[in-house]
Amino acid sequence: MRIVVDAMGGDHAPSEVVQGALNAVSDDSGIEIILTGDEKKISSSFPSSSNSSSITIHHTSQTVEMTDGPLQVIKQKPNSSLVAGIEMIKNGKARAFVSAGSTGAILAASLFLLGRIEGVKRPALGVFFPSGNNGLVLCDAGANSDAKPEHLLQFAIMASGYMSHIKGVHEPKIGLLNIGVEETKGNDLYLEAHSLMKEYLPTFKGNVESRYLFEGEVDVVVCDGFLGNNLVKFAEGWIRHVHQDLSTQLENQNVSVEKKREFKSIFSRALRHFEYEEYGGVPLLGIDGDVIICHGSSPARAIKNAIFAAKKSAETNLVGSIRDDISSTVSLIEGKV
Amino acid sequence: MRIVVDAMGGDHAPSEVVQGALNAVSDDSGIEIILTGDEKKISSSFPSSSNSSSITIHHTSQTVEMTDGPLQVIKQKPNSSLVAGIEMIKNGKARAFVSAGSTGAILAASLFLLGRIEGVKRPALGVFFPSGNNGLVLCDAGANSDAKPEHLLQFAIMASGYMSHIKGVHEPKIGLLNIGVEETKGNDLYLEAHSLMKEYLPTFKGNVESRYLFEGEVDVVVCDGFLGNNLVKFAEGWIRHVHQDLSTQLENQNVSVEKKREFKSIFSRALRHFEYEEYGGVPLLGIDGDVIICHGSSPARAIKNAIFAAKKSAETNLVGSIRDDISSTVSLIEGKV
Repeated sequence: MRIVVDAMGGDHAPSEVVQGALNAVSDDSGIEIILTGDEKKISSSFPSSSNSSSITIHHTSQTVEMTDGPLQVIKQKPNSSLVAGIEMIKNGKARAFVSAGSTGAILAASLFLLGRIEGVKRPALGVFFPSGNNGLVLCDAGANSDAKPEHLLQFAIMASGYMSHIKGVHEPKIGLLNIGVEETKGNDLYLEAHSLMKEYLPTFKGNVESRYLFEGEVDVVVCDGFLGNNLVKFAEGWIRHVHQDLSTQLENQNVSVEKKREFKSIFSRALRHFEYEEYGGVPLLGIDGDVIICHGSSPARAIKNAIFAAKKSAETNLVGSIRDDISSTVSLIEGKV
Repeated sequence: MRIVVDAMGGDHAPSEVVQGALNAVSDDSGIEIILTGDEKKISSSFPSSSNSSSITIHHTSQTVEMTDGPLQVIKQKPNSSLVAGIEMIKNGKARAFVSAGSTGAILAASLFLLGRIEGVKRPALGVFFPSGNNGLVLCDAGANSDAKPEHLLQFAIMASGYMSHIKGVHEPKIGLLNIGVEETKGNDLYLEAHSLMKEYLPTFKGNVESRYLFEGEVDVVVCDGFLGNNLVKFAEGWIRHVHQDLSTQLENQNVSVEKKREFKSIFSRALRHFEYEEYGGVPLLGIDGDVIICHGSSPARAIKNAIFAAKKSAETNLVGSIRDDISSTVSLIEGKV
């Protein structure tokens, strides 16, 4: 399968992106990669020993800057690694797109070039968290900074499709993130979303509090993108803070240097499980094409895993599945009105 | 100083509350405690060996149930441990009130009996997080499920007062929690709050992303109560999940049983630092009296630390300080209009 990867997106581009691509094709011979971006910079990022016939470079001359607004990127930079990459999905030159570039710009270019799946009101980001048996998907993790109740209903449907595809969970259990389990809890948005989800989603389990998120009661948790983005970033900051603090505290323990070293190594190995790099990128659910967004600081490991995630999305036809699920709910709602 | 403690509030009442009170008076001879609640149940929770002249019981005959709404509690249960306890602050029989009961009921009874500090529009909860040098206070942690921009401005002022009082931080640096550092980020509430805070708060440092919350850049972080409550509960669930998961992973490591035990003990000791029990309760900022709310699952350690927090609030006149700070901002805003 041919996957296009934005070699210029992210804090460690192009070197870590190139390394991630090399690792992906070396681990999975079914993957071909097109790297978009500055040919010279990309070429010089290849380790001298590497020689992969599964990777080609598509040169682009324009550079997306951190200060560029999303609209500016799609209007003024058609020959950037980001826009040209997404264009390749549109033209059928590749099956999926992976980038660690600006979320806003990827979202805007995806909407402009690929459009939404029919019936979808807003695309959303679905982030995977390790927990319980299968983990859970939180959606929206920040594609939108505000939302309406019907958007939350659709986030639930799209995230359920994603959870079925990545983890093979049959009829994922859905929860609405809220400040209490009672139906009467939360602000107007959440009260209305609750009643919509209760009416239209047979696997809706009601409100779930974030303190019980990881106890395996739900496979999908829905919230608005402002809350979701804050939570996902909080999780990242909190785990890093706990890690650093524990390392410091360990230094002060009255045990030998060897034990400290051994403990730190066990501890770091165990914490890997919680690092975003392990789960690769995050799909832009609701876009009519497979678009995977990576963390801006992605190292090679995250890029490689995002490429695998992109392949899986395309292979299992996640987009087609979301199209079917959204379309049946739209009919159901219209039938009621 | 005399502090009234709701002996019937919380999942482990009255036994853990009684034990927490005993530990508090044993550690600090300057504290006298009145326990409100069912005299028989409270008495039988005292360990047979204990004999503290610093603790008295004020019998109340009504019981607050989990299903009681806040208004029901204040109207129909004046002789409950919660309402009678807050009444004692109003009547000057005690200086501060501590409870692990329902946040909604404590808030309602505090508003009804003690009222707001002049000029305060909405009381808010300020939660302390360990981080950097002094830690930080997040406010509102869930007293309100929605908010207006001017409420966020006041949360910043009240939380700054709290941070100065508990940690002696001079002119605490204030951040607005948001999905990006740029002024243009976030939904309408956050955009407007940003411009208000920029105008009226000299120590406002702009937006802060939750992933960098623990890097010591701000002493106070402001958000609406819906987001704040979700974040605080997420932090609690996440740390518990990480703890459990690491213990399981440690079991699977190829090291001796003795080492596993030793590692687990070091690890648990280090993680104590992140447990809410360590920081006691959370003050209801903006109420005209010292009211401290504890986590519903509070064990004795949390109750004891909440009693110390209550004493510190009253001793340092946190309420007076908030009154002054709110009043000067109100004058400033009125002067401008």
